[in-house]
This record gives sequence, C-alpha cells and structure tokens, in this order.
Amino acid sequence: MSENHFIHHVYFWLNNPDSVEDKSSLVEGLKKVTKVKTIKTFHIGKPAGTNRDVIDTSYAISWLLTFDAKEDEASYQTDPIHLKFVEECKYLWKKVVVYDTVDL
Amino acid sequence: MSENHFIHHVYFWLNNPDSVEDKSSLVEGLKKVTKVKTIKTFHIGKPAGTNRDVIDTSYAISWLLTFDAKEDEASYQTDPIHLKFVEECKYLWKKVVVYDTVDL
Repeated sequence: MSENHFIHHVYFWLNNPDSVEDKSSLVEGLKKVTKVKTIKTFHIGKPAGTNRDVIDTSYAISWLLTFDAKEDEASYQTDPIHLKFVEECKYLWKKVVVYDTVDL
Repeated sequence: MSENHFIHHVYFWLNNPDSVEDKSSLVEGLKKVTKVKTIKTFHIGKPAGTNRDVIDTSYAISWLLTFDAKEDEASYQTDPIHLKFVEECKYLWKKVVVYDTVDL
C-alpha cells in the first residue's frame, strides 16, 4: 500500500446474528456510506471460515476503509452520509469494535 | 478493492509494550515476512491516536495482509518464512487477535 495511509477497520456484531435480513440491511447501509468522498478504498466482508485459536470468527460484518490522511477520516466521522447511516442502522448491532491504524 | 480479496488483519499486544526495542524487533521480523510470495499487499502500522469508546487503542502493532485467494493465505500460514518469524518473534507478544475476512 502507498505511504500515509489511515486504515479504519470496523467489526460489527449484530443483535440478530442469524437474521439474513438484518445482515442485508447493514450491508445496504454500508454501501450508501461508500459515497463519502474522503474514502480512498473500502471493503465490506464477512468471516473467511478460517478457524484457529487466535482468530476471532464471531463478528458478522467487516468494514475496512482506507484514507489518504488522518484529516480525511476525521471528516468522514462527521459526514452527513455517515451520520445518517449510524442513525438508521444502529438498531442492528450490539457491538462495534474499531481499530484505527497509521503508518509507523 | 478488487474482487475475491482475502483480508488477514492481525493485531499484536506486546509483553513489554513500552520497549522501543521490542517493538522494533517485531517490525523487523514482519518486514522479513513480507517476502512471502503469496502476499498481495501488506501494511505494518500502529494505533492512529484516535480515541472514542468503540476504538481499541490498546494494541501495539497492526499487520494487514491481503491475498488474491483463500488458498494463498493458507499457503502463507505454512510458508517457511512465516513459520521462522513466529518461532523467532513469539517471545515478544502476549496476545494476538486475528480477523480473516472475505467478500460477501
């Protein structure tokens, strides 16, 4: 990857993890968030099916974003598209864990 | 990102989190691992300095790999370069959490 990346990786655990509809609602919501202009790359994913002691396989959806700069991620946090998503979709999740990472 | 990604995101917590030397040893070890041929992209990072309730800022080093296919990641797991790294550097960490993610 190029220099000066800001990596924002979010893992979602759902209130109804077995609900195909709820998972689909979250994914559709995230797809709308991809329109935020400061996002450089995005990936929406699910657990890979691997299974070792150190692997956390319990989340439902992975949301991986990269930004060119820290300021772009800060802008994303308050972007109306992002805020609307949180407001409309927050009933779906019971837990969210975020890891923000920058270059060494 | 392109289709058919396999995303392997590892977070390391160190036995001596305040040791600059230990952190450096881990990073040098990871740099050697980047030579594994099945890796598509890699990123070695540290916490971004952001701080909200949902953000886990407690890890020391983030190791983000992407692969073109699940088989490439499986091959990476048993690659001699990777195994040598684990053997030589495992004394450095007290906890490792891995999230493996594929396309929906």
